[in-house]
Amino acid sequence: VTAGRLPVVLDAMGGDHAPTAPVRGALQARAAGVDVVLVGDRDRLVAEMAAAGDGGLRIVHTPEAVGMDEDPAIALRAKPRASVRVAVAEYAAGRACAVVSAGSTGATLAAALLGLGRLAGVRRPAVGALLPVRGGVVLLDAGASTDVQPEVLRSFAVMGVAYARALGVERPRVGLLNVGSESGKGNALARAAHDLLEGHDGFAGNVEPGAVLAGAVDVVVTDGFTGNVFLKTLEAARQAGDSTAAAVLLGVAGDVLVAHGASDAADLAAALGTARRVADSGLSRSMAVRLERQGPQGGEP
Amino acid sequence: VTAGRLPVVLDAMGGDHAPTAPVRGALQARAAGVDVVLVGDRDRLVAEMAAAGDGGLRIVHTPEAVGMDEDPAIALRAKPRASVRVAVAEYAAGRACAVVSAGSTGATLAAALLGLGRLAGVRRPAVGALLPVRGGVVLLDAGASTDVQPEVLRSFAVMGVAYARALGVERPRVGLLNVGSESGKGNALARAAHDLLEGHDGFAGNVEPGAVLAGAVDVVVTDGFTGNVFLKTLEAARQAGDSTAAAVLLGVAGDVLVAHGASDAADLAAALGTARRVADSGLSRSMAVRLERQGPQGGEP
Repeated sequence: VTAGRLPVVLDAMGGDHAPTAPVRGALQARAAGVDVVLVGDRDRLVAEMAAAGDGGLRIVHTPEAVGMDEDPAIALRAKPRASVRVAVAEYAAGRACAVVSAGSTGATLAAALLGLGRLAGVRRPAVGALLPVRGGVVLLDAGASTDVQPEVLRSFAVMGVAYARALGVERPRVGLLNVGSESGKGNALARAAHDLLEGHDGFAGNVEPGAVLAGAVDVVVTDGFTGNVFLKTLEAARQAGDSTAAAVLLGVAGDVLVAHGASDAADLAAALGTARRVADSGLSRSMAVRLERQGPQGGEP
Repeated sequence: VTAGRLPVVLDAMGGDHAPTAPVRGALQARAAGVDVVLVGDRDRLVAEMAAAGDGGLRIVHTPEAVGMDEDPAIALRAKPRASVRVAVAEYAAGRACAVVSAGSTGATLAAALLGLGRLAGVRRPAVGALLPVRGGVVLLDAGASTDVQPEVLRSFAVMGVAYARALGVERPRVGLLNVGSESGKGNALARAAHDLLEGHDGFAGNVEPGAVLAGAVDVVVTDGFTGNVFLKTLEAARQAGDSTAAAVLLGVAGDVLVAHGASDAADLAAALGTARRVADSGLSRSMAVRLERQGPQGGEP
């Protein structure tokens, strides 16, 4: 069985509109040629399929799920059969090509680290979001690691380049999100990261938010706090739309995607399509290779 | 002479379009009832007035100016007669009710600290910007102090409340800019600041960018790096418009405003009008009183 024939596994209990939106999104994705397997409560999923008048999606049954307001670490420990954990386990067992969840990003990340581990050389994982600029500009970290050392931003640059290349960008240009374009601008983290990134393959220097939206770079690197504020501000200003509906967890040893908690069926169908493309591009494998070439990354242990 | 009769002093050599835009902005402001005195090169200012067909603005002559690309600290030391320093000196000598400059924010802040000093109890100054939400939501710090301790964010809350009250908000609600509304969210700085602010007069907890734009609070507190990224992202997404054209330097012992470097005449006329209102409200005096009541603020020395 090749990866191309494996289905995408969907945490059907994750998100504000679960399980209705996941089931309907999976049906839409299947109609578009993306095979999906659902993880969740069998009775509820069968009822949703009946309501949609369209059955036939394969279900991996589990009675547990992590709520959006639960502490991820505590919930995952208390619920070994939580749908997001079972979805990751399906992938780990080689029965799916990628994982998608619209549940809590923290819980999905924790489940991915627990079930798959990190890629060698990665100290801190990152959420890689696609900004709706040109073909899609990679923003990382969009929210996984809020307090990081400058060396971690350098490893984010390596992961971001791998992601952009998987998306088809041949020579990705990397910018450091900052409050001015001149070197020496920014807070202590940005100034130190700029020095570390100087000379890095494709590094184009500091970029202000306006330059990012103007498409000056292919990859934007920042810490998870600033990146999340940046992304949420764009979304609140209604410039981001659905393009950020699915983000990739970068640095985990596998292809795992998170969708917005508020995702509807169309958003989830789009996320499942993105997952299919990410899996086909062999993202986590190519990233592992690039990280290995790059040598050990710094950052706190 | 009462403050109400003093002119606003304008650094006529500051900004991308100086001295044309400052001179024309001052003429527009005067037509709207705001008296202005210009600081800059007399010959150039007289020529600009002649070109505008409207003379009669008072000029304080100085041959020096700080360029937008100069290091503020170095430039101010090398140019004791720089227009922004002379403008601050006019205010300090009691010949103006407020200062406006569209030059580099760093240079204006340095000139203000040099010429006026800080309000008692303020460890770090902040740029207080008005977001175009309802009557105007106060964002601080929009860019003065990029690396701060949690105690500094508490003093920003005190200054922000004073500013909002000067703008006519009776009981300002204060939010901490964050990536989630629940307590415990955010980076180390935000988590510690949340704990410090809990119980603070008017504190409404964490606010996400969307809640800020929805008008959930009157004052938004954050560090100068995050605040500047937030503001620039809003501007780049074209949601901010001219409402942020003028921002107040909070924590300096006087009423000093910075306008966008790209300001045109209309932007500067609006900034001069804002300066007039800030002076009439007695902002820096009322802030001094509130800070004194609040007792000593923490933060790094």
